[in-house]
Amino acid sequence: MTESELYNLLSASKIPVPPYKSIGFNEKPVVDFFPVALKIESPKVIHKSEFGAVKLNITSNEALEVAKAEIIKNVENKGVKLDDSDRFIATKMTRGEELYFGMVNDAVFGKTILFGKGGVLLELYKDVGYISIDADRAEIERGLKGAKISKLFDNFRGLGFSIDGAIDFVQKLQNFIKQNPSVSEMDLNPVLLTNEGLIAVDARIQFDDRAIETARRKRHDFFDNKKVAIIGASSDQNKVGYAIAKNALTFKGEAYFVNAKGGELFGKTLYKSVAELPSDVDTAVISIPSKFILSTLEELTRKNVKNALVISAGFKEIGDLEGEQKLIDLVQKYNINMIGPNCLGYYKGETDLNLTFGSNNVLSGDLAVVSQSGAVLAALMDKAFQNKIGFSHIVSVGNMADLDFGELVEALNNEPTCKAISLYVEGMNDGKAFLQAARKSKKPIYIFKTGRSAESKAAAFSHTGNLSGNYEMFKGLLESAGCILLDNIEALIFRPSLNDVKNVLIVTNAGGPASILTDYIVERGKNLYKLTDENIKVLDAALPFNWPKANPVDIIGDAMSDRYQKTLEIVQEFDEVDLIYVVVTPQFMTDGDKIAELLLKNWKKPVIPIMVGGYDLQKGYDLLKANGVLSFDTLKSATDLL
Amino acid sequence: MTESELYNLLSASKIPVPPYKSIGFNEKPVVDFFPVALKIESPKVIHKSEFGAVKLNITSNEALEVAKAEIIKNVENKGVKLDDSDRFIATKMTRGEELYFGMVNDAVFGKTILFGKGGVLLELYKDVGYISIDADRAEIERGLKGAKISKLFDNFRGLGFSIDGAIDFVQKLQNFIKQNPSVSEMDLNPVLLTNEGLIAVDARIQFDDRAIETARRKRHDFFDNKKVAIIGASSDQNKVGYAIAKNALTFKGEAYFVNAKGGELFGKTLYKSVAELPSDVDTAVISIPSKFILSTLEELTRKNVKNALVISAGFKEIGDLEGEQKLIDLVQKYNINMIGPNCLGYYKGETDLNLTFGSNNVLSGDLAVVSQSGAVLAALMDKAFQNKIGFSHIVSVGNMADLDFGELVEALNNEPTCKAISLYVEGMNDGKAFLQAARKSKKPIYIFKTGRSAESKAAAFSHTGNLSGNYEMFKGLLESAGCILLDNIEALIFRPSLNDVKNVLIVTNAGGPASILTDYIVERGKNLYKLTDENIKVLDAALPFNWPKANPVDIIGDAMSDRYQKTLEIVQEFDEVDLIYVVVTPQFMTDGDKIAELLLKNWKKPVIPIMVGGYDLQKGYDLLKANGVLSFDTLKSATDLL
Repeated sequence: MTESELYNLLSASKIPVPPYKSIGFNEKPVVDFFPVALKIESPKVIHKSEFGAVKLNITSNEALEVAKAEIIKNVENKGVKLDDSDRFIATKMTRGEELYFGMVNDAVFGKTILFGKGGVLLELYKDVGYISIDADRAEIERGLKGAKISKLFDNFRGLGFSIDGAIDFVQKLQNFIKQNPSVSEMDLNPVLLTNEGLIAVDARIQFDDRAIETARRKRHDFFDNKKVAIIGASSDQNKVGYAIAKNALTFKGEAYFVNAKGGELFGKTLYKSVAELPSDVDTAVISIPSKFILSTLEELTRKNVKNALVISAGFKEIGDLEGEQKLIDLVQKYNINMIGPNCLGYYKGETDLNLTFGSNNVLSGDLAVVSQSGAVLAALMDKAFQNKIGFSHIVSVGNMADLDFGELVEALNNEPTCKAISLYVEGMNDGKAFLQAARKSKKPIYIFKTGRSAESKAAAFSHTGNLSGNYEMFKGLLESAGCILLDNIEALIFRPSLNDVKNVLIVTNAGGPASILTDYIVERGKNLYKLTDENIKVLDAALPFNWPKANPVDIIGDAMSDRYQKTLEIVQEFDEVDLIYVVVTPQFMTDGDKIAELLLKNWKKPVIPIMVGGYDLQKGYDLLKANGVLSFDTLKSATDLL
Repeated sequence: MTESELYNLLSASKIPVPPYKSIGFNEKPVVDFFPVALKIESPKVIHKSEFGAVKLNITSNEALEVAKAEIIKNVENKGVKLDDSDRFIATKMTRGEELYFGMVNDAVFGKTILFGKGGVLLELYKDVGYISIDADRAEIERGLKGAKISKLFDNFRGLGFSIDGAIDFVQKLQNFIKQNPSVSEMDLNPVLLTNEGLIAVDARIQFDDRAIETARRKRHDFFDNKKVAIIGASSDQNKVGYAIAKNALTFKGEAYFVNAKGGELFGKTLYKSVAELPSDVDTAVISIPSKFILSTLEELTRKNVKNALVISAGFKEIGDLEGEQKLIDLVQKYNINMIGPNCLGYYKGETDLNLTFGSNNVLSGDLAVVSQSGAVLAALMDKAFQNKIGFSHIVSVGNMADLDFGELVEALNNEPTCKAISLYVEGMNDGKAFLQAARKSKKPIYIFKTGRSAESKAAAFSHTGNLSGNYEMFKGLLESAGCILLDNIEALIFRPSLNDVKNVLIVTNAGGPASILTDYIVERGKNLYKLTDENIKVLDAALPFNWPKANPVDIIGDAMSDRYQKTLEIVQEFDEVDLIYVVVTPQFMTDGDKIAELLLKNWKKPVIPIMVGGYDLQKGYDLLKANGVLSFDTLKSATDLL
């Protein structure tokens, strides 16, 4: 594509390019913009500069004519014969800060816009903003701000340029990409930031005519389960089918057990075949050898089953891609929602429906968790039970051969008992659909994504067969779409209740640890609450003269539990404080056990104890843990959940 | 300073500047370098561009003469009368990547060289390398590489430029700074990276003639303690002086107790005054009200005391700067090594000398810890005791009014029992002396520094009165000088034994958590050990067919303690593995308690268990803790110590 063709193409979508003019071989060159660069446009001349076919800094039409003649001479001196099919392009020379805009066609997210500093620095700083081609203005702004270089738009060097101009430019790019569906890859490099706004000076565009669009199925409601059947319910306590059947006993709807051997289990009939089941089973859990699954699913369709949870492993994760594809084809044919294969199961708090083979130590609550790893889920459920955190829904998606994160988020949005959604993600099938679901979600979405390193991607792939994409793109796009990305799995269960925390107060018996904690809190983007004069007055009356009269509230090394108590009683009344960290270090007088007892109380604000020690404070720490108080023994881990 | 003067000054230290020539008012301008820029040099013309007194892109001596005449006309048109005291400078116009070099005079580190990208990006990316003016070539290279932009030196755009040229340039800057001691601040901006190397094109230099040099005292050996006296030893169990006296009972040398009330304590005489002490007491611990300290120290000098540990608070940290200065003056006058005031004390493992009022739960070992916070130290000692980590030396420096980190590091280098040094730092007095000590240190130095955020600096200041400087500069300079900066305090005691860990192996009963752990390990700069064919063969014989034949070694969800045991027995024999993480998640068959029991054994390689769960795994985790096994309940905290 010649420069003229490129500029024509971009201009058609109103993407600003420099003033330019295409000039015929025998045409007298006349332009009204200067300084100007003149170049040949001929398929015979590839390396223009080497052929002397580029002239820069031309400041008059007379000089332009001279330049054109010189180019022709230079090229012909190289032995290339030109004729009147060859043309020239005169382009206004423009100066400005060099930026980069581009587009890639990502395997997970589809066509995605990239933004950064132009030139060698893009690669060097890896400072890239990612923008979905479906993003609206606010989301585009967040995407642009994913790159630090976007600060240039904030009245850069006093030129009065603003982020609005950059958003306009991206919207024009979005239109360009939609109007030209065959564009498969694009680099606008550089795009110059000038007094007149952003101008695309050069571009490289690749085309690919194969359109890839997959239609989405209209789904049954996965979370509507009145009748459930457990295929493979077993009286053998070492079998998963036993654990699921046992967990299912609490269900407030109807649960049916199927096992070819027949008999009874927990006082209920074990049906010998799916055929014996009543009609209109909503949800079937399948825990049988993988080779019987397809035929069983076929049979289940005759009972109008809508949802299938395939617990059994033995598909993609052990390399059997063909077997997994057959499963997918079958559930698509009958429009069954499938979860799994190779999953831990499903829990719904509202109806005490526990179709997992994990522990039955699970409380009903308002957090929904969807996890691509059964083990991570089991660990989180275990930790949640210890800390009295309840769930509205738990879904272990396993290989995620059918229902994807996006569809589950959409469905969870219709569930009144779910107030927040936490996702453990290794890879996504349809990132674009997920972004759509995230944008529409009325409930906050928390995400931990593994597979940031190449080594970890390999590990994730080997256990569920899912490919993890580029983490930075994942993070950039999802954050712009409103999701909250976390850097540790525990935050998936602890962070939702702390999401609105802005102002933090620290009560401590030592300055050093409080200063460390302060760094971590500030680095997590939270404020250290500033004490008012009134606050200080009240605390002054309760504390030794030499307390520092500031937050962190250092109640001095000789503080015992009574002083901790008095202080907590006071600071829990400070209106704007959202969270209180209580730091206990093992000092001369410290009665760690008694302080721990005190911290078992229900304070008016969330209180998180940190027992910064080992041996001397272990008993107190154990007491807090045993009573399900979220507490920590290091300063760093205590802030990891913010 | 005019441009000519500046170039003369820089050239004198061989700092490359562009070709230039100073031209007299009536002189005919002739140069042999083009293209050239011509500017007036006159104190009458401040805003050269506005006065039309700058001409760019001049390509011949004829044009240069025309330009000179035009400048004179332009300036005189503005009403300024020029005469033959005014001059011109012709400078070769140079192109290249814009870089920045500068120098600041830091309160802690003295004159320090800064390096980064020139222009607006320096501020935007905060990508700065810090270089000591005493750094040798290797240290300069590490300093330069502290800024990502240094990658440009690595054969930037194929120009063949190398880091050596940048090191040469910095060495010239170091010389310049030493040759011009009155230079107090400097910005070389831009320095252009060109085919000919780095060229300083413009500079701003500030001068200050006040020379600040403090001579260092020649010290007694602080760690030589044969006779110690505890001033303020008390029989009142609630007093610090009681705790210190009690802890001191294990000392293998002579310990004397002083208390004005007289009597006996632990079967030893309580001397009524310092005067009653025997002569040649090496070390005195002082735990008496602050108002008596000066006179007591005066008395102690008559016993030839070399070292004073001032435990008592009541000085800078409560705002009494004057009182603290009197202490400093006194110890300087008598050349006493003082630790404190406001400190926890001192411990030396070799002689079982515990002069702290902390717990006596401390083991002798080979790690030295110096801490500016008594509470952090107490917490670390508590944690170390729980994990059976011993100390060669412990020093709580408190307000650090006298002996500084640098002097302590030097002294510790002469102590054979000390193998590694860990420092908890809030602020330093003499950063330059510390860098010298760090460069010479034969023992690895680990540092945790608080005060990264403004809020935390304020908190640190209020409790020991120490100012924390710029964290990035601190980190940059210290890392270049060979120190290891840590991001959590626990690593100060755990990391030294893991410093040589390169290759990590993971044994796990689940893929998801192992993939998360892999990310953290890789992000900490460690390798995931790659299994050899031979390794795989041995493991194959012991593991289920579907283990993934790679590290992480996923021994599959149904693994019980016997399979963990078999696997550990195998992998502990893999030569190149330095560290084994054992991940336990609560799955269907998991016998967490038995796995924990297994992990109590002494394996051939360091084994760190991670019990990734809560309720179900708590008992096993408690067992590990109770037996002093370094173990974790989250994946993130388990890698924080790497």
